[in-house]
Parts: sequence; C-alpha cells; structure tokens
Amino acid sequence: MLVLITYDVSTMSDGGTRRLRVVAKKCEDFGVRVQNSVFECIVDSAQLKKLEIELAELINPAVDSLRFYVLGNNHKHKVKHIGAKSSLDVEGPLIF
Amino acid sequence: MLVLITYDVSTMSDGGTRRLRVVAKKCEDFGVRVQNSVFECIVDSAQLKKLEIELAELINPAVDSLRFYVLGNNHKHKVKHIGAKSSLDVEGPLIF
Repeated sequence: MLVLITYDVSTMSDGGTRRLRVVAKKCEDFGVRVQNSVFECIVDSAQLKKLEIELAELINPAVDSLRFYVLGNNHKHKVKHIGAKSSLDVEGPLIF
Repeated sequence: MLVLITYDVSTMSDGGTRRLRVVAKKCEDFGVRVQNSVFECIVDSAQLKKLEIELAELINPAVDSLRFYVLGNNHKHKVKHIGAKSSLDVEGPLIF
C-alpha cells in the first residue's frame, strides 16, 4: 500500500539537518522523496509498523513532527502533482 | 472529503516566502496547516477543482511543487501523528 510520510523538522534546531537526512534515507528504503520533506513509501502493514517505530527513534519528538497518511493499494487516481519536480512512479520500473 | 496538500517552495527563491504565505492562507480557508508546508483540507469535488486552479496560479511552477492526495471521507484511521504539534481535528468543533 502507499503511505505518505511528511516530516516537519526544524533544520535550525541542533542536529535538524542531520535528522532530515537520516529520516530521508530510512524512507527511501521503501519509496521516493517527492518533496523536500514528503516521502511516498510502498509498504505492507508489518513494514509500516516497523518504519513508524524506527522513524520515531530518529526524530526529536519535542520539536519535530512526523505524519503518516495511508493511501491504500488503489492510489493511482488519488495523487495529483502541479509544478516542478514531478515524482517517479513508486511502483513503476526504474528507467534511466 | 479530506485532501492533503503538500507544498514544496524554495523560500530562497524570489518571493518564495510570500508564496508560501499566500498558499497557506488559501489552504486555511478549507482546513488546517498541520506542518509548515502540509495542509489538511475538507473539500468537495467542485471545491477541490477550484482550489487546484487557484493554487496553481499562486505558485511558481518552475521552482515550486504542489501535490494533492485524496484521502476520501473515511479518513480518521488513515492518519497518524508522532512528535510535536499534533493537529486539530479538521472536522471537529473549534474549542478555544
């Protein structure tokens, strides 16, 4: 299923830039970064649970905000993009 | 229905901070800002179409990215928050 993960980190706070980098790296194990702090991940329920726990350990919960939105399996028609940097199809073949 | 709008703006670019402000203002007509560049809006199909057109006119499509995710009507169990600044319930009563 597609899960959208949005991460609001204060990059002005101590270690904020580093936390954004490690959160991005973790999310990119399961999908793509579609905006600076927005990740589209393809996971099953067990992977999502694991990812939630792992990400919660990477952030600073006092200042950072992490949100998960479950878009489900039938998500092709639920996403629309306008402007720069259109994303990859997270479930499509990688063509270089 | 709940529609998530994520906006990646280069605040370093000319007018970026102003564009973020006007996009936020427009989105807040229909919902709440849950993260710096993430808005949860409650709209019907006609309002969504109108909002897409209006927001497209506010951004700089050469450098900004705007994404819409349709979460539908049954969305209570599809959203999870970890960390700082938990959001309002966008459909709940406003209590001050």
